[in-house]
Amino acid sequence: MGNTFGHLFRVTTFGESHGGGVGVVIDGCPPQLEISEAEIQVELDRRRPGQSKITTPRKELDTCEIVSGVFEGKTLGTPISILVRNKDVRSQDYNEMTDTYRPSHADATYDAKYGIRNWQGGGRSSARETIGRVAAGAIAKKILHQVAGVEIVGYVKRIKDLEGIIDPNQVTLDQVESNIVRCPDSECADRMIELIERIGREGDSTGGVVECVARQVPKGLGMPVFDKLEADLAKGVMSLPASKGFEIGSGFAGTLMTGSEHNDEFYTDEQGEIRTRTNRSGGIQGGISNGENIIIRVAFKPTATIRKEQRTVNSLGEETILAAKGRHDPCVLPRAVPMVEAMMALVLCDHLLRHQGQTGTFRPKLGQAG
Amino acid sequence: MGNTFGHLFRVTTFGESHGGGVGVVIDGCPPQLEISEAEIQVELDRRRPGQSKITTPRKELDTCEIVSGVFEGKTLGTPISILVRNKDVRSQDYNEMTDTYRPSHADATYDAKYGIRNWQGGGRSSARETIGRVAAGAIAKKILHQVAGVEIVGYVKRIKDLEGIIDPNQVTLDQVESNIVRCPDSECADRMIELIERIGREGDSTGGVVECVARQVPKGLGMPVFDKLEADLAKGVMSLPASKGFEIGSGFAGTLMTGSEHNDEFYTDEQGEIRTRTNRSGGIQGGISNGENIIIRVAFKPTATIRKEQRTVNSLGEETILAAKGRHDPCVLPRAVPMVEAMMALVLCDHLLRHQGQTGTFRPKLGQAG
Amino acid sequence: MGNTFGHLFRVTTFGESHGGGVGVVIDGCPPQLEISEAEIQVELDRRRPGQSKITTPRKELDTCEIVSGVFEGKTLGTPISILVRNKDVRSQDYNEMTDTYRPSHADATYDAKYGIRNWQGGGRSSARETIGRVAAGAIAKKILHQVAGVEIVGYVKRIKDLEGIIDPNQVTLDQVESNIVRCPDSECADRMIELIERIGREGDSTGGVVECVARQVPKGLGMPVFDKLEADLAKGVMSLPASKGFEIGSGFAGTLMTGSEHNDEFYTDEQGEIRTRTNRSGGIQGGISNGENIIIRVAFKPTATIRKEQRTVNSLGEETILAAKGRHDPCVLPRAVPMVEAMMALVLCDHLLRHQGQTGTFRPKLGQAG
Amino acid sequence: MGNTFGHLFRVTTFGESHGGGVGVVIDGCPPQLEISEAEIQVELDRRRPGQSKITTPRKELDTCEIVSGVFEGKTLGTPISILVRNKDVRSQDYNEMTDTYRPSHADATYDAKYGIRNWQGGGRSSARETIGRVAAGAIAKKILHQVAGVEIVGYVKRIKDLEGIIDPNQVTLDQVESNIVRCPDSECADRMIELIERIGREGDSTGGVVECVARQVPKGLGMPVFDKLEADLAKGVMSLPASKGFEIGSGFAGTLMTGSEHNDEFYTDEQGEIRTRTNRSGGIQGGISNGENIIIRVAFKPTATIRKEQRTVNSLGEETILAAKGRHDPCVLPRAVPMVEAMMALVLCDHLLRHQGQTGTFRPKLGQAG
Repeated sequence: MGNTFGHLFRVTTFGESHGGGVGVVIDGCPPQLEISEAEIQVELDRRRPGQSKITTPRKELDTCEIVSGVFEGKTLGTPISILVRNKDVRSQDYNEMTDTYRPSHADATYDAKYGIRNWQGGGRSSARETIGRVAAGAIAKKILHQVAGVEIVGYVKRIKDLEGIIDPNQVTLDQVESNIVRCPDSECADRMIELIERIGREGDSTGGVVECVARQVPKGLGMPVFDKLEADLAKGVMSLPASKGFEIGSGFAGTLMTGSEHNDEFYTDEQGEIRTRTNRSGGIQGGISNGENIIIRVAFKPTATIRKEQRTVNSLGEETILAAKGRHDPCVLPRAVPMVEAMMALVLCDHLLRHQGQTGTFRPKLGQAG
Repeated sequence: MGNTFGHLFRVTTFGESHGGGVGVVIDGCPPQLEISEAEIQVELDRRRPGQSKITTPRKELDTCEIVSGVFEGKTLGTPISILVRNKDVRSQDYNEMTDTYRPSHADATYDAKYGIRNWQGGGRSSARETIGRVAAGAIAKKILHQVAGVEIVGYVKRIKDLEGIIDPNQVTLDQVESNIVRCPDSECADRMIELIERIGREGDSTGGVVECVARQVPKGLGMPVFDKLEADLAKGVMSLPASKGFEIGSGFAGTLMTGSEHNDEFYTDEQGEIRTRTNRSGGIQGGISNGENIIIRVAFKPTATIRKEQRTVNSLGEETILAAKGRHDPCVLPRAVPMVEAMMALVLCDHLLRHQGQTGTFRPKLGQAG
Repeated sequence: MGNTFGHLFRVTTFGESHGGGVGVVIDGCPPQLEISEAEIQVELDRRRPGQSKITTPRKELDTCEIVSGVFEGKTLGTPISILVRNKDVRSQDYNEMTDTYRPSHADATYDAKYGIRNWQGGGRSSARETIGRVAAGAIAKKILHQVAGVEIVGYVKRIKDLEGIIDPNQVTLDQVESNIVRCPDSECADRMIELIERIGREGDSTGGVVECVARQVPKGLGMPVFDKLEADLAKGVMSLPASKGFEIGSGFAGTLMTGSEHNDEFYTDEQGEIRTRTNRSGGIQGGISNGENIIIRVAFKPTATIRKEQRTVNSLGEETILAAKGRHDPCVLPRAVPMVEAMMALVLCDHLLRHQGQTGTFRPKLGQAG
Repeated sequence: MGNTFGHLFRVTTFGESHGGGVGVVIDGCPPQLEISEAEIQVELDRRRPGQSKITTPRKELDTCEIVSGVFEGKTLGTPISILVRNKDVRSQDYNEMTDTYRPSHADATYDAKYGIRNWQGGGRSSARETIGRVAAGAIAKKILHQVAGVEIVGYVKRIKDLEGIIDPNQVTLDQVESNIVRCPDSECADRMIELIERIGREGDSTGGVVECVARQVPKGLGMPVFDKLEADLAKGVMSLPASKGFEIGSGFAGTLMTGSEHNDEFYTDEQGEIRTRTNRSGGIQGGISNGENIIIRVAFKPTATIRKEQRTVNSLGEETILAAKGRHDPCVLPRAVPMVEAMMALVLCDHLLRHQGQTGTFRPKLGQAG
C-alpha cells in the first residue's frame, strides 16, 4: 500500500534497489502525446548515481524501457509502464548491514512493520525507487508544457549554511545544469561543491534546501479543503527520501510579518489579468492556483548512511559499531533537484486533469479526444 | 472533489460558512467504540469562535448532532455523520465583499476556478469547514488512545517572534489549556496575548507556529514511498487554512548539521526495546513510525482578512480599497491548535487501520469484530 | 468503509432506518448547475414508501433539505449535502426482531461482521439508505441531460413470471409513471398489480426484473479494463438491496447464439455517424459506450421480510419461529425503478467527468469553469 | 484510468497484446508470504493460448518474471511486479484490421475515445491483459487459502445450450482440469468439445456460462452499501472481456419464487455455528459473507472475432467486408475459467484485508507483522 500517487494521473512505482529492477506504471496519461524513451532518459540521467564527483560512485546507467502504453511514438491512453533494470549489484557491500541497523535509516522500521526486509542495500527505501517518479515526472512535465506552457525549474538553494542568491522568476534550466551541484548561483555553487567534497572525504554527509518554481500555471488548479494544491505538493515532496520540511511562498519566515505586511495586493495588469504585486502566497490562495509563480522549498537532511563510525544495535538489539561501506552520496541535494521537480509536475498534472474533469463539462459539447 | 481524507478511516467534510450548516461523514470507524456528542463537543469548543478575547467575536456555539452511525452510545461500523448548524449569520457584514477580492484570501481563486462563489463570508474556504475535521479528530483520538494509549498534544510554539520554551515529551493538555493562547510556557503566553491584542486593536493580524506531539505511537505505522507517515501528516496540516510550512523532527534546522551530528543513535532500553537516544527523526524513519514521539511544526500566516485599509480589485478587475468588516481573528493560532491535533489524529488513525489491514492477516485465525 | 461510490462524481451515503436521518454528500458536482430541492424531491417521491397500495404503508414523506453546496439556486462546486430526517419511527414493531434473525436478511451477517447492530428495523441495511442514492441520482441525471441530452428510463420488465412487452428505444417516463407498478405495458401492469396484491395478502412476497435504458449517451464513456462501463453499472446495481443478477445487452440469452448471429454489424448512417444495426452489445463495446442505447436488466429477489411464519434462530443460535410485523413491501420492484435509474445516472455521470478529465486536456486552452 | 482494482490488495495491470509485454503490480500484499514464479506459472498456463485444440493456436508460453517485491522466496510487503513478455508477434495478420472495425469488438470505441489505437491485434482490449489478473489472482488465492482455508473452483457450466450437471459444493480442481473444456461433467464435456470444434471449423464462435464457487469463506467479509461483496464480484467479472451477465446464488431464476420459497432458513449446526439450510443467497446476505459457499455465474458472449465474412465499416465510415485472419478462440470459456477464479480471489482477498483493517483494531494489542 502507499505506492500510488495521484487521482487522474496515477503513478504507481515498484522495485527494490537490488533485484530485477525498478519502474513505474502511469495510468491516466492523455492519449496522443508524443513521448520517447530518450526524453525520459534525459531526466533519469539528471537523477542517476555516478553522474559527478559529488555523487555516489554506484555505476548505474538507469536505461529505461517503455514496456507499454506508447505506440508509434504516441501515448495510447492506456497504462504506460517503464522499466529500469538493476545492473551494478554489489550487495556484498551490504553484508555487514544484513543485521545491523543504520542510524536514522529505514532498516529498523521496515523490520518492525513487515518482519522482513531486503537487506541488500536500501531495498524499497532506497532512493532508486525515485527512478519511477522521475520517469513519470518527465511525462507530466511534457503534458503541462504542451497544454499550458508550464515550466518547472528546481535548484539547490542551500547546502548546510551556504545559501545561493537566485531569482525564481528568472532562473533557467541551463543555469541549473551549468554546474554539478545544481545551484544556479555559480559563485556559491563552487563553495558548495568544495564543502560537499570536504565533508565526503571525512566520511560524513550534509543536507540543505531545494527550491522549485512552476511558472505559467493556469489559474484554478487545486481542490479546496483536503486536496489543496499546497497540501498535495507538501505530500509529494515530503514523500521523497530524506525530506524533513516544506514551505510554500513565505513559509516559516512569513509568520514574522503582520497581515498588512504579508497580504499580496491585487491589481489588474495591462492584459486585463488580475494579478498580485507581491507573491508571499507562493502562487496559491485557498488551495487554488492564482496564476502567479508557485514556489516551494524542501529541506533535506544530511544523508544517513555515512562511513564514519556510529554506535547502533543489530536486529537482536545488541549494541555494535557501524562504519558503512557501500556507495553513498555525501549530499543528496544535487540528485534531489529532479525528484522535487518530478513531484511538482505530478501534482500539477493530476490537478490539471481533475480540474478539467470537474469544471470542463458544461462546455457546449462533449467532444472526442484529440 | 478533494473533500475526503484518509483511506480506511475516511473523513468527508461539507458545508459553507453561511447556509444550512457544516459537518462531516466518517466512513470506516471501527464498531463498538463508545462515543458521545459530549466528547466531540469538548474538542469543538476548543475550536469555536468567540471563546476568548483574542478570537473572533462571532458567536457560534457549534453544537453538534450525531445524525447516524452511533446506536445506544456505541459506533455501529456504519458512517458516522455529524452536523453543526450555522447560527449567527450576519452576512450583511460581507456585502462589501460580494464583489471585492480580499488580498491573500480565496475569493479570487474560487471565482477563477468555479465561476461562482458564496460571497456571504468565506463560503467553503472559511475555517468553519474545520469543524468537521475537529469532530472526526475527536473520534480518531479516542480510537488511538484506546488501542495503543496514544496521546496527541498540540500547542502554540511561537506567535510572530515570541517563542515559548516547551518540552514536547512532557507537555500536558492541562498546561496547554491553562491560558487562552494555548502556549504552555505561561510567561511567554502572557506576552503573546498582549501582542495579539495590540495587533488586533490596530486592525492588523499576526501568525506563528503550532507544534504538535504524538506520544506512545506504536512502531510500524506508515506506508513506505508515497504514503509515508510524514507525507500524510504534511498533507493533513498543509490542507488547513492559512498554513504555509511544515516540519518533522529536526526540520529546516537539521539541514545545518552533518550526518554524524544528525543521526539518531540506536540503543536497547531496559525493557529490551530498540530506541533512539536523540529524536531528530521526529519519530519517523523511512516513512514508518519508530516508537519515539512524533513531533511536527506548522507555520500559520497572519490572518488575511484585516480591518486595515488595503488596495485590491473587484471581480471586474477595477481597483478599489477594502477595509474588512465582518468578525475575524487577529491570530488564528490558538484555534488552530485543535485543528492540527485533529489532522494528526486522522492521519495516525487511518494508518493504524491500514497497517492492521495489510499486516494483521497472518494471525492464526481471522475472527469476528470485537 | 464502502459507503462511497464514484471517482470524480463521488457520492457518500449515511444513515440508518431509525435514528436522526439518512442522506448523502456529493463531492465533485460541476459548478453553476441549477438545482432545487423540488427537483430532487420528484425522484424521492418515486422511491418513498407509502406511495401506493402495493408498497409498504410506512408513512415517510422523505422531505429533503439541501444543507450545503448550493447557493442562490446553483451548485458551487463544493460538496452538496442532502439530509432527509427519519420521521415515522415505529421501532416497537421490531422488538421481536431485536434478537431473531430474519431469514435471507442482513441481521445475522451484520452481527457476524461488527458484533453490534441497530435492530430497530433494517438499520444500515434498510432500503432507506437508497434515499441518498436517489437524491444524488437526480443531480446526475440533470448533468447528463444538460451536457449531452442523455435520457435514462427504467421500468419493471417482469414480476415473477409476468413479463411486459416494452421497447427500450421508445419507452417514456410518462408511460412508466402511468401505473403504480411502473410497467409501461399497461395490460401486463394490471396483472402484475393483481399478483402483488394477492401475494401480499398471503403474507408472502415476490421478485422480478427491472430494465433500464440510457439514450443519447455520448460515444467514448467508460474506462477499459477494470472500470469498464458495464462493470461499473454491474457494481452499481448489484449494490442495491435485494439484487441477484445483472445483464447488459444480450445478457445470458446471448450465450445461446453463435458469433455470426450475435455480432452487431457496423454501418454509417445518414449523418455520417458509425452505428450498429443491432444492439446485442447493449451500447457498450470493450467497456466503452458506442453511442447506441445502453440497456441493462437487474434481477431482484422476493422481499426477505414476510409476515408468513418462518423457522429461524436467534442470536444465541436457538431455534425459533418468526412472523414479521413491521411494514414491508410485498414487492420491491416498483420502488426499485428509481434506484436503478439513479445508479445508472451515477455511473454515467462519473464516467462523463472522468472522460473529460483524461481526454479533454489537449484542447487549445485550458479555460475557466462555466 | 481504470486499470487498478481493489483497495488494500490493489492490482494494476498494464500492457498491450503487441509491444514489450504485459504485467501487473500488486500493492498491499501482506509480507512473509512464500510465493514463487512456478506457482504463478501454474495459473498462467491454465489461461495461456495454444493449450489445446479448442483454443487459439497463438503460441505464447507466457513465462512470468517476478521483478520486485519478493526476496528469498517471500513477499516483502512492497509492490510485487510481474512481467510477461510478448513473444509470438504476428501483427501482419492484423494488417487488414488496421483500419477495419471488427463487429462487436473494441476497435471503434477505442478510436472514438482516444483517437488512437494499437491496431496490432486487440491492443489493450486483448484478453492478454488478463495475464496480470491471473498472476495476481494466484497470489490472492494463496493468501485466502493460508489465512482461512478458502478454496475457489471455477468451471464451464454451459456452452451454448449444452449444460453440465455439477455440484458446486463438491467439485474439485482435478475434475475441472480433467478435460480441455474445463467442464467437470465429463460426458457433457465431450459434447461441448465436439460443438466448439464444429463451430470453429465453420469460422464461427460460441459462448456460454462459467460458474465459480468459493468455499470456506469466513463470515463477515464485504462492506455494506456500495462495496457489497456481490457488487464487487459483479464488477470484477463484468470487467472481463466478453462477459455479458452476472448472477449470485439464485440469480434471475430466483425471481420466479415467492419470498417464503426463496428465503434461506437459519439453523444451528452441530458445531454451534449458525448456518442456512438452503443457499439461494449464494453465500452473501446484506453484502456480507455468511459462511456458506459463495456461488456466482458469468455469461460470456460468443467470441467477436470470427473468420466468417461480416459486413462492417472502416475508420472512414466506408462499408466493407471483413473475414478476420489472426488466431482467435472459437470459444473463450475454457480459458475464462481461471480468469473468473482470479477475479473472485482478488475481490475476496481485498475484502479480507479491509475487514481486518476496520474491525481488527480493538484486539488487545496492535502487534508487529507476522
